Amino acid sequence: MKKHYLLTPGPTPIPPEISLKEALPILHHRTSEFAAIFSDVAEGLKYVFQTRNDVLILASSGTGAMESSVVNLLNPGDEALVASCGNFGERWVKILEAYGIKPQVIAAEWGDVVNPAVIEAALKANPKIKAVYTTFTETSTGVANDIAAIGAIVARTPAVLVVDAISGLVSQEFLTDAWHVDVAVCGSQKGFMLAPGLAFVSASEKAWKLVEQARLPRFYWDWRKMKKSLATKETPFTPPVTLIVALQEAIKMIKADGIENIWKQSSLLARAARAGMKAIGLELFGQRPCEVVTSAKVPEGMEGGKIVKMLREEFGVSIAGGQGALKGKIIRFAHMGYIGKADILVGFACLEMVLTKLGYKLEKGKAVAAAEDELLKG
Amino acid sequence: MKKHYLLTPGPTPIPPEISLKEALPILHHRTSEFAAIFSDVAEGLKYVFQTRNDVLILASSGTGAMESSVVNLLNPGDEALVASCGNFGERWVKILEAYGIKPQVIAAEWGDVVNPAVIEAALKANPKIKAVYTTFTETSTGVANDIAAIGAIVARTPAVLVVDAISGLVSQEFLTDAWHVDVAVCGSQKGFMLAPGLAFVSASEKAWKLVEQARLPRFYWDWRKMKKSLATKETPFTPPVTLIVALQEAIKMIKADGIENIWKQSSLLARAARAGMKAIGLELFGQRPCEVVTSAKVPEGMEGGKIVKMLREEFGVSIAGGQGALKGKIIRFAHMGYIGKADILVGFACLEMVLTKLGYKLEKGKAVAAAEDELLKG
Repeated sequence: MKKHYLLTPGPTPIPPEISLKEALPILHHRTSEFAAIFSDVAEGLKYVFQTRNDVLILASSGTGAMESSVVNLLNPGDEALVASCGNFGERWVKILEAYGIKPQVIAAEWGDVVNPAVIEAALKANPKIKAVYTTFTETSTGVANDIAAIGAIVARTPAVLVVDAISGLVSQEFLTDAWHVDVAVCGSQKGFMLAPGLAFVSASEKAWKLVEQARLPRFYWDWRKMKKSLATKETPFTPPVTLIVALQEAIKMIKADGIENIWKQSSLLARAARAGMKAIGLELFGQRPCEVVTSAKVPEGMEGGKIVKMLREEFGVSIAGGQGALKGKIIRFAHMGYIGKADILVGFACLEMVLTKLGYKLEKGKAVAAAEDELLKG
Repeated sequence: MKKHYLLTPGPTPIPPEISLKEALPILHHRTSEFAAIFSDVAEGLKYVFQTRNDVLILASSGTGAMESSVVNLLNPGDEALVASCGNFGERWVKILEAYGIKPQVIAAEWGDVVNPAVIEAALKANPKIKAVYTTFTETSTGVANDIAAIGAIVARTPAVLVVDAISGLVSQEFLTDAWHVDVAVCGSQKGFMLAPGLAFVSASEKAWKLVEQARLPRFYWDWRKMKKSLATKETPFTPPVTLIVALQEAIKMIKADGIENIWKQSSLLARAARAGMKAIGLELFGQRPCEVVTSAKVPEGMEGGKIVKMLREEFGVSIAGGQGALKGKIIRFAHMGYIGKADILVGFACLEMVLTKLGYKLEKGKAVAAAEDELLKG
């Protein structure tokens, strides 16, 4: 009978309108009914990505789509740059290394953001760099990189810009074409309000030129097969039919709200979350906070894992703790997708109780009040 | 208002008990609740696979799991053998070639099965062959290879046997360990009665030895990460949570029926399907028919695609046509997973009407009666 409140940065809650679509009798994927849904979804993805290029649909976790952005663009021995500031930035390095590419790595401290000027200097110093890999919203720390600035820099070079926008795209303003993002990667379980299992990749003309020359091995991840499937409406392999049917509903809901309004909503919730944290003396973590998750430092002497566990076990509230070196040191509240104003208030009310039980001194109601203040400003 | 009847070899119909599980509020994957489900499912998969080895869980189509069985076992320059008899056998060749492995190919005619003696001779002639890739039920033609015989042969050599059992495992008797199958690959959308989006791989000790030495590039497909996740109950990447929750229900249902009874049921339906086809003069296609799908030749002068289309559009009955060279030449009725006795009868009744409309001479009710006769023998 436990009621759950999901304030985690993926999976995020799924609206019943979407999850019930997943439960409908399954369609066969080689039918005109499915082809119509597939076309509609492919068009809708362009709107969500804010791109005129095709958006490819993959049956995988987001990491699979990241891997596809390595094997479809590079040749053995190519030079690549990774601009990283957290766990997900480091994943680019691991994937590249798995394929024998030793990238040049610009690693900002966890909590900082990538400095676009450093990328500019690196590209100037090494004109052979073929691709720059970075992260939009680095949810492991809660920051957002300035992709518009990075895009403007990379666009002036022969390199392509590949952005892991898995957690941020949909929920926080992300303009694939206007920002000169050659490859944007996204997953289904964040702003798309779907279950995990689908991933998406957009690729620019500049990127497609590399795809034709790329010689890293690929079969399942081959973008050429996926692009062809957009034209023929026949996927190369059995696609996750129920998730794609649910995706159609998700895109319909996103369009009905208007993507700009979704961006505004996340931004409002982010301001409320930051205000709530500060009101009870929790120090925010990270420079240039993103709008999909808010990170705060765990009070001195307290173990962050305990807060996370107690919130879940006693109140059914799931938030995220820290990853890697930040394990136990930060807590993270997500506010994207189907997480609403009231959910943030639930999160803070329960956080107040948990911190009190753990011996932290605070004035009950203060985090909630501060969040309310921000929400009322609209 | 159109009612659909799915008699296709994947996706197959999903029981409401399972699809409603998919629609439940999503769990976070880093929780004790999900860890318990993940463990339970991992144990249950061993029963379904009839193996004592771990069964790995992948977020992909079945083809992704096939690719993982190439990159986790081989080194550049290794020798491999593919024993193929249809579309899915040929897929092994394409995947291997994508990774620069030029396999020796034993290709039986489409409709025939692989001759185990030919595999034996090939292994004798070339003791450097490291892996033999083949297919259990080749649904593109409707035949089943004799994996028990092939397994006994390969077990006496240093090579490992890798079997694409995507469409057959669960529904037709498949004894991973007893038949000496080193690697068995399966997908979620066939006998498991789930939506597509999950795939499974079991690996023997002999296979794991190769995994440790394998040097083909891999990140997302790396079995070592997946094996570790079985121990820690923490998946390396966000798993398809809703599908895994639904899988738990599917395995519960499979266990409740008893897997031997599921095998018997498919076998009975296969006999009924074969009898129905023959009763109206349709010639069965393929040697050694499998028990998950029945193929019959399209009557002379008729276009198979028309039968498939008319069945779907006029009666909501989805069956499969031919693939590749068999396009338009065969029709295929699936009988696995949540396809029951009555569904087969619906299929034949509607097929009788469609063939009649297309000008084929038959006595209405004859296919249904012949299928009934077989079903009554139980």
